[in-house]
Amino acid sequence: MEESVNKVEEEINTILEQAKELQESAASLISRSNNDEQSLRQKALSLESSIRSLRSLIDSLVSRKLLDSNLADKLEDDLQRARCILADGDAAAFLPTKAQGRFLKMFLGPINVCATRKDVQLKVKEEYNSYRDKTALLFLLFPSILLFLRSWVWNGCLPAFPVQLYQAWLLFLYMGLAMRENILQANGSDIRPWWIYHHYCAMIMALVSLTREIKGQPNCAQKQRGVELFLQWAIMQGVAMLLQNRYQRQRLYTRIALGKAKRMDVVWGETAGVDGQLWLLCPILFLMQIFEAYVGLQLLKTALVGVVPEWQVIFCGLLFVFMAVGNFINTVKTLMVKSRFKAKMKRTKSKQELY
Amino acid sequence: MEESVNKVEEEINTILEQAKELQESAASLISRSNNDEQSLRQKALSLESSIRSLRSLIDSLVSRKLLDSNLADKLEDDLQRARCILADGDAAAFLPTKAQGRFLKMFLGPINVCATRKDVQLKVKEEYNSYRDKTALLFLLFPSILLFLRSWVWNGCLPAFPVQLYQAWLLFLYMGLAMRENILQANGSDIRPWWIYHHYCAMIMALVSLTREIKGQPNCAQKQRGVELFLQWAIMQGVAMLLQNRYQRQRLYTRIALGKAKRMDVVWGETAGVDGQLWLLCPILFLMQIFEAYVGLQLLKTALVGVVPEWQVIFCGLLFVFMAVGNFINTVKTLMVKSRFKAKMKRTKSKQELY
Repeated sequence: MEESVNKVEEEINTILEQAKELQESAASLISRSNNDEQSLRQKALSLESSIRSLRSLIDSLVSRKLLDSNLADKLEDDLQRARCILADGDAAAFLPTKAQGRFLKMFLGPINVCATRKDVQLKVKEEYNSYRDKTALLFLLFPSILLFLRSWVWNGCLPAFPVQLYQAWLLFLYMGLAMRENILQANGSDIRPWWIYHHYCAMIMALVSLTREIKGQPNCAQKQRGVELFLQWAIMQGVAMLLQNRYQRQRLYTRIALGKAKRMDVVWGETAGVDGQLWLLCPILFLMQIFEAYVGLQLLKTALVGVVPEWQVIFCGLLFVFMAVGNFINTVKTLMVKSRFKAKMKRTKSKQELY
Repeated sequence: MEESVNKVEEEINTILEQAKELQESAASLISRSNNDEQSLRQKALSLESSIRSLRSLIDSLVSRKLLDSNLADKLEDDLQRARCILADGDAAAFLPTKAQGRFLKMFLGPINVCATRKDVQLKVKEEYNSYRDKTALLFLLFPSILLFLRSWVWNGCLPAFPVQLYQAWLLFLYMGLAMRENILQANGSDIRPWWIYHHYCAMIMALVSLTREIKGQPNCAQKQRGVELFLQWAIMQGVAMLLQNRYQRQRLYTRIALGKAKRMDVVWGETAGVDGQLWLLCPILFLMQIFEAYVGLQLLKTALVGVVPEWQVIFCGLLFVFMAVGNFINTVKTLMVKSRFKAKMKRTKSKQELY
């Protein structure tokens, strides 16, 4: 017995020693890799600033006609290649990330959401895409079922509970999307800020809708006109999202292959898919924006015609119009960037054919 | 001119080379530190399992009367010290973290919220504490103002908008708390799961309350009885939270100093402060739980007496009762753990005095 107790005591002493050793090697590993990271970070930063200053140097040489535009294009391509290596490779982990926004800070505190490893970053992006896919399907199904049941089961009058359930779902959905997009942004994606603001607006709209009473009989069709319009718009949005997601992903892979995009880029729907689909998507997007504005104006009309105007209806109406205008402006901007880029590509291509 | 163009070309080539070099050294640093981390991780894991098996060996020796209980206490203290070095030191970064729950995954996707560095973990914890402080103050102020204005400005009848604003604030507040607590848990805190579930329940309650119409005159006092009770309960909760936060933090620091707690521990309020405050806090906590159950039962009563029972009232009533019971059980459990621990401390102390 004495012996086994001695053995236990010995073992415990060994373990205490081992724990101290482990603590020391962990501390030294952490400080060592901090130093290594720091030096890589500085190199990456100085490289990035050199690329930037060379680019503006080329621009100024071109504008002063000191540089042939063919040569300028070639030099810019080289710079772009260096930029891609820096931004898409492992070194990207050491570039300073964009500051995390107030939205993430509010809900998560000071935790860091930047993935340091490229494969994790890609996983985040992939997961975001598949989340959007699932979302789009529900976006299509949920309001369709509500409208279907309304006509065939509920005699043209929606009960409050399923509509409120739908609104609560929308609230959490938009919140999740806004968080994920903030995380993607922190991880270096070039997502247009508008699409994040758009989700904040949609979140607030869902919240405000929740506070509004869903009135029933009598005169149900008239009272629920706003809800009906909203559901119809949601179905349209679901179809558009499905189309967008599909071609967006395809386009992203094409762009990655061409080396034009960092893989973290999220171009939320509206920036259109590969060329062929552009002719299908653009009309749908503009049509949706027109319908969005129409829903907003209709809401405003019913609120102003009604005897007691509900603030929720006025608020949602204004928000709809605001979102429609913002969506329109940002879609047009994206198309302009796209066509400018395409024109440049064509120029380069025709020049290459001349060589 | 020719010369400056040549110079630019040269510089761009250099930069392209540098980018490639940087990519290589980044890749090698990442793979090297992954290897180092892997080996530390294995060491930490095996140490942890040895500690666990030694602890159960001591227990079995004691129960078979093969080990003197004085010696057992000393050995257990040594083991505990090894455990503290492992869990509180830098090596903790290499211990496997608890899996992130479904809640975080739902909103954030697969992003990793575990801070690898101890100082960041502590920052997260500190920030959580100060967030709770601010929250408690608002928790006290918001409903007090509403009740004050109700009596002095609104003639005993709350308008819907400020109440809904308050409910929306509660929804986002509880969401933020639940997220932060999930993050703390992922970072190795021993927070009792109940307090996280409690915040999920509170979140759902806020959401359900939002869907309920706030009715006004006539008979306002009767219709708004539920809201009034809820606001009173919220004020009590605010006071309790302020007391708890203050002594919780004090106690955490004491525990850290004594080496009993990992610093990530969050003992959400109910586990009481340092000894002197325990006599103040415990009655307040139990009183609050009784009041919580009372509010729930009152809500159920008004719902069942009313001609058209609103499902929201019944749901909130049941949820209140459920939360009160859960809070009570968990407070008692925590007190029991505390008193057991104290008894053991006393025993050790009196033994040390005997030596």
